[in-house]
Amino acid sequence: MNGNDFIFSDRILKSNRSFIREILKVTSHPEIISFAGGQPDPTLFPLEELKFSTEAAFQKHGSQLLQYGVSEGYIPLREKIFERYYKNIKYPNFSPENILITTGSQQALDLIGKIFINPSDSILIERPGYLGAIQAFSLYEPFVIGIPLEDDGLDIVALKNILSKTNPKFLYSNPTFQNPTGKTLSIEKRNMLAEVLRSNHCILIEDNPYGEIRFESEKIPSVQSLYPERTISIGTFSKTLSPGFRVGWVCAPKEILDKLLIAKQASDLHSNIPSQFILNEYLNHYDLDLQIDRIRNSYRLKKECMEESLKQYLTEFADWVSPKGGMFFWLTLKNEVNSMRLFEAAIANNVAFVPGNPFYTVEPETNTMRINFSHSSIEAIERGIRRIGESIRKVSTVSA
Amino acid sequence: MNGNDFIFSDRILKSNRSFIREILKVTSHPEIISFAGGQPDPTLFPLEELKFSTEAAFQKHGSQLLQYGVSEGYIPLREKIFERYYKNIKYPNFSPENILITTGSQQALDLIGKIFINPSDSILIERPGYLGAIQAFSLYEPFVIGIPLEDDGLDIVALKNILSKTNPKFLYSNPTFQNPTGKTLSIEKRNMLAEVLRSNHCILIEDNPYGEIRFESEKIPSVQSLYPERTISIGTFSKTLSPGFRVGWVCAPKEILDKLLIAKQASDLHSNIPSQFILNEYLNHYDLDLQIDRIRNSYRLKKECMEESLKQYLTEFADWVSPKGGMFFWLTLKNEVNSMRLFEAAIANNVAFVPGNPFYTVEPETNTMRINFSHSSIEAIERGIRRIGESIRKVSTVSA
Repeated sequence: MNGNDFIFSDRILKSNRSFIREILKVTSHPEIISFAGGQPDPTLFPLEELKFSTEAAFQKHGSQLLQYGVSEGYIPLREKIFERYYKNIKYPNFSPENILITTGSQQALDLIGKIFINPSDSILIERPGYLGAIQAFSLYEPFVIGIPLEDDGLDIVALKNILSKTNPKFLYSNPTFQNPTGKTLSIEKRNMLAEVLRSNHCILIEDNPYGEIRFESEKIPSVQSLYPERTISIGTFSKTLSPGFRVGWVCAPKEILDKLLIAKQASDLHSNIPSQFILNEYLNHYDLDLQIDRIRNSYRLKKECMEESLKQYLTEFADWVSPKGGMFFWLTLKNEVNSMRLFEAAIANNVAFVPGNPFYTVEPETNTMRINFSHSSIEAIERGIRRIGESIRKVSTVSA
Repeated sequence: MNGNDFIFSDRILKSNRSFIREILKVTSHPEIISFAGGQPDPTLFPLEELKFSTEAAFQKHGSQLLQYGVSEGYIPLREKIFERYYKNIKYPNFSPENILITTGSQQALDLIGKIFINPSDSILIERPGYLGAIQAFSLYEPFVIGIPLEDDGLDIVALKNILSKTNPKFLYSNPTFQNPTGKTLSIEKRNMLAEVLRSNHCILIEDNPYGEIRFESEKIPSVQSLYPERTISIGTFSKTLSPGFRVGWVCAPKEILDKLLIAKQASDLHSNIPSQFILNEYLNHYDLDLQIDRIRNSYRLKKECMEESLKQYLTEFADWVSPKGGMFFWLTLKNEVNSMRLFEAAIANNVAFVPGNPFYTVEPETNTMRINFSHSSIEAIERGIRRIGESIRKVSTVSA
């Protein structure tokens, strides 16, 4: 038997296995300090609180916790999400009915691709952009146009220029503490973005997994709040409570939500019931803001520690923009050092990161790289950055 | 603001909201006895055992229960699934590596559609066929060809004939206690099916949610065991332990599994972690076969009770094949009574079922209907079938 003649769809034949996934395999060795993943610090998970919430959910729901549920998601949880994140948005008839629970925010990306993208449709995405979005959308075979990022977020002039020439299905953006660059769209630019999108009738997908993980006190208004009529907002509990629960959500105008719901039913009927009930009990019994404060304080410290080490070991080799929240630094290597080559040297020196390539859909800037600060200990951060410095020195010497 | 100018994808514009879903809304009124859904009897869920397993999972895994996991699924759970369902299949190098955990078996259907179907590709599906599969596949815009069902399952001659004229991507079949008809492919025909598929290099999707819920003692060999080289087997814990957990799986040749894995990553990264850990603990501590025996005994009794009532109230109005397992009777109404019209009369008489229409992709047999016996009490089954009899009488009188 030779299996080589299975005939797959065009969309999957164009897709590669996740590059980060392959990297994570290499980096699983215990000797390696890995800045490659994007995992939260597990010591900050509210384990005892979620355990208590689990017991409360079993107590309250009994066998309904094990039964099929509705595709939209558990109503009290949708109400709490709406109350916390969307109730101040000025849009007619906005209500918890505008929330759809998804199996992590990754599923939201897949469903959005499914309901909007015909093969060869143009879509816009930040350049560099979030890898998970690139993967989800790519399976629907769009023509992806990258919009450059400046230090204060999307290049609005470039966007305007593109929109004058093309009519994309949507702009996908992660404007707050972006993955991978950590950059944040300024308030001024948020207003400009809303205006440009409005005058072009362009849908915005505003993905906001890190918005709560900010290191400064002032909150930044969402772009959705400035442009509610055509924004699809994506959120998640993965960075605040638990990624293993796979509970994310979409908030969108009703006409869009209705289509997402059809796609949701066809994709997995509904999301995991116990996790929805447990999160709802958590929000009944505990203060999410206190939990988020713990995360912010810890990640701020780690970020500062990483930046100290970067200054100490990498100033001569790399540039970066200091992130005001989130989980990542984005480095641009000087002298055109290739981050894929650096990766090999770094692995040999027991430290890992993600080379910038997979965050670009075309023409990658090969001297870029992403390093995560949420998952490692303070001590590992210092040691790991030192090792990266050593590896750059090595690679540069070889090149010279 | 007028939202009517959102531009959706062709695939979603061709899709309708789930018909069953709309029906379930009508039937949620407490007065109504509903045979419309496909839910397990919640009183049979092993609630205390799963609660204990949850505590054991928290105890064993701690914060790892809340963290991101691998896309393939939790290895010990994959091993147990392989051991229970697939270890006797004769196929080179078959191992737990051939198992992918999915977010319910519904997601398996979506992923299969994603990796195989280009728009206009032909696929084969039983006629009538499982609605969830029709919905999942339809979003990839195939040309669906229905293969008629006989009392002992797929019409193999019709299949052979179709395969001589067309080259479909796959045949989707639910050969054991089929949804919606309850029919089972005979052993003789399983051998014939394997042979026909093999000589045509046709992939088989063997969906088997009900295989464990059999009312007779002898086990029927899977079609996969006769044709492992091109079968994708789909399974689920939804009918045996908990649908709310959304844990299903695919077992397939490695080349196919690799593609499914890429699609899985793009769809939701990985399935819910706590539910995978809890099911694994359940299987460590309890005997699944005892749990299944409880379900079989209860559903067998309900099925017998429903058949008694059918004989008493519907003999003159309908034909059916007695199911040997699963959850459904499929009725063919005599005298061309239209089941959609009957549905309206039945709702007025406080009883619900699913008219046959949505189980057909084209030219529905309008005198068919599905009734579920797993979810209602014995007492409700007797009363509900009596009401259906009254409703048929009413509709027939009006027509006459």
